[in-house]
Amino acid sequence: MKVSELGEFGLIDLLAEVVGESRDSKAAPLQKPIIGIGDDAAAWYCNETIELATVDSLIQGVHFTPDTTGWHDLGWKALAVSLSDIAAMGGAPRYALVSLGLPGYTEVGDVTKLYRGMVEMGNRFGVVIIGGDTSNAPLVIINTTVFGSVQGEVKNVLTRSAARAGDKIAVTGYLGGAAAGLEMLSRKVELSREDGNSLKQAFLHPTPRVTEGQILLQQGVKTAIDISDGLISDLGHICRASKVGARIEVERVPVHPVAKANFKGKALEMALAGGEGYELLFTASDDIINKVGKVVSCPVTVIGEIIADDTGKITLVDKHGETLKPARTGWQHFKAES
Amino acid sequence: MKVSELGEFGLIDLLAEVVGESRDSKAAPLQKPIIGIGDDAAAWYCNETIELATVDSLIQGVHFTPDTTGWHDLGWKALAVSLSDIAAMGGAPRYALVSLGLPGYTEVGDVTKLYRGMVEMGNRFGVVIIGGDTSNAPLVIINTTVFGSVQGEVKNVLTRSAARAGDKIAVTGYLGGAAAGLEMLSRKVELSREDGNSLKQAFLHPTPRVTEGQILLQQGVKTAIDISDGLISDLGHICRASKVGARIEVERVPVHPVAKANFKGKALEMALAGGEGYELLFTASDDIINKVGKVVSCPVTVIGEIIADDTGKITLVDKHGETLKPARTGWQHFKAES
Repeated sequence: MKVSELGEFGLIDLLAEVVGESRDSKAAPLQKPIIGIGDDAAAWYCNETIELATVDSLIQGVHFTPDTTGWHDLGWKALAVSLSDIAAMGGAPRYALVSLGLPGYTEVGDVTKLYRGMVEMGNRFGVVIIGGDTSNAPLVIINTTVFGSVQGEVKNVLTRSAARAGDKIAVTGYLGGAAAGLEMLSRKVELSREDGNSLKQAFLHPTPRVTEGQILLQQGVKTAIDISDGLISDLGHICRASKVGARIEVERVPVHPVAKANFKGKALEMALAGGEGYELLFTASDDIINKVGKVVSCPVTVIGEIIADDTGKITLVDKHGETLKPARTGWQHFKAES
Repeated sequence: MKVSELGEFGLIDLLAEVVGESRDSKAAPLQKPIIGIGDDAAAWYCNETIELATVDSLIQGVHFTPDTTGWHDLGWKALAVSLSDIAAMGGAPRYALVSLGLPGYTEVGDVTKLYRGMVEMGNRFGVVIIGGDTSNAPLVIINTTVFGSVQGEVKNVLTRSAARAGDKIAVTGYLGGAAAGLEMLSRKVELSREDGNSLKQAFLHPTPRVTEGQILLQQGVKTAIDISDGLISDLGHICRASKVGARIEVERVPVHPVAKANFKGKALEMALAGGEGYELLFTASDDIINKVGKVVSCPVTVIGEIIADDTGKITLVDKHGETLKPARTGWQHFKAES
């Protein structure tokens, strides 16, 4: 069987299985990760602290094209993507390693811009680039590893597997802006300057919800993921990991206002299925979500509810309670879109 | 200027500069790495423990070709390369993250072999794969991040910058075996089965000197690097970082016996300039090197001496003290070989 037939999520399950079955636990009696393969970041104890680590790749032609993404934005985004995974665990990011693959003909000035973009993103959240690796490569490959830790008294992290039936489902910020920005840039859609800048920013210059992730954890939230693949797809990760189902009232989904103004009906699809917005999706009681909403500086919107359904099924309903079917469920590597 | 004109080491210096000048130290007052960009691994304190992290990429067509490297060996080697960097700091490796780029047509069975190879390498030293990332990619890209820590009472790590004039220069094991193995495989040189297997093993199945690195640190060694680029090149890293020079007596260099038997005069060049052998190169007093030699289970050979010369110059001399010039100095990404 080919990797493309198995799909990204099937591949990850397989790799977790291979690691589990071939691992010699006698060889590593001291290594007891709190979180292993399959969550936003890995986690383990270092003395009393919970340490976190995550890795992400941006590959030219797969995750970005030089046409739509400049070097500075590319650097910013490469680090933002990994910081978002630490945010989704409720952690504080601290250090980054950057592994770069570059064609020899790359302009040194462009690499400098790339790094300035990364350092700027890092400065925003107190993250220092402390090392990495450089290689000759036929195309641009940026690999960022970020380490963080959980601060304070909290003895746990935000996982994908703690959602329980009855939890409300909430999101930070607005959804669909990044997908609208990508659509605008790749199809060269003409918008007003202000709207164009807003969507470009949403796609090329996302700010990970690092502060918000830590607040979620402190307020007692147990389940979160960052929306990198798309709302439906990432909620699916939570549902499968938690062995529950979900019901989303699509009218409550906070569609990015500029996407809505310019892409009309398509904007809802962008909000449901579009990735790379890096908002946080979380589940908790009404009470906890209310407390979170009072502390964070961004909008927090309840969009649905976790239901008892161990198949991981997600149901979309309109305001009359009628079931809807989305056109796409999100972004998955390897699999052809159906 | 192009990256190919600057070369890998120039690029690393530039990136370290960009990170240094653009970094906002007020934004990250708590992040004080012990070792940043430019050593084998990055290091920082977590409470009383020194934490280590390193990242390496293997890119198809650059670091390996499917012709010469099978999937299981590729997995083994991908993790071995990063463990070797932790070894060169004197650390104990603990966890790994693996970021995979794969074409959709890759056979799932091959990915399973790749992971089995990695897990086998990890089991050897008690390292657990706890996460990662998968992407569609036009070619195979394997990125391994390894975390480790320094065990016991040691309050420091092995760096590249602690060599002092008068230190002796020593290496573990034999050199040039991996380069001979690559030559054999890529030029399809016919050797006896036993010799062929030995060189193939040296190139495709290197064992990082994890145990030896920890012993070096415990015995009081302060300076080490793993030989990944080539003896001369990696000694150059130590010399520049320590602002010293070095003198190597080429007759004392422990050339891999099978390489010597099959490649004659060329074997010395392989030992001086060939990379990917992953032996440790270190400097210390005679006394400390003797103590190390008594504790480790592999050969330890003194091959020269650190001299006061802040240009970082390396002189090769024959047994009569005559100065020699090597044909190549090692493997550097981006730069065309001169």
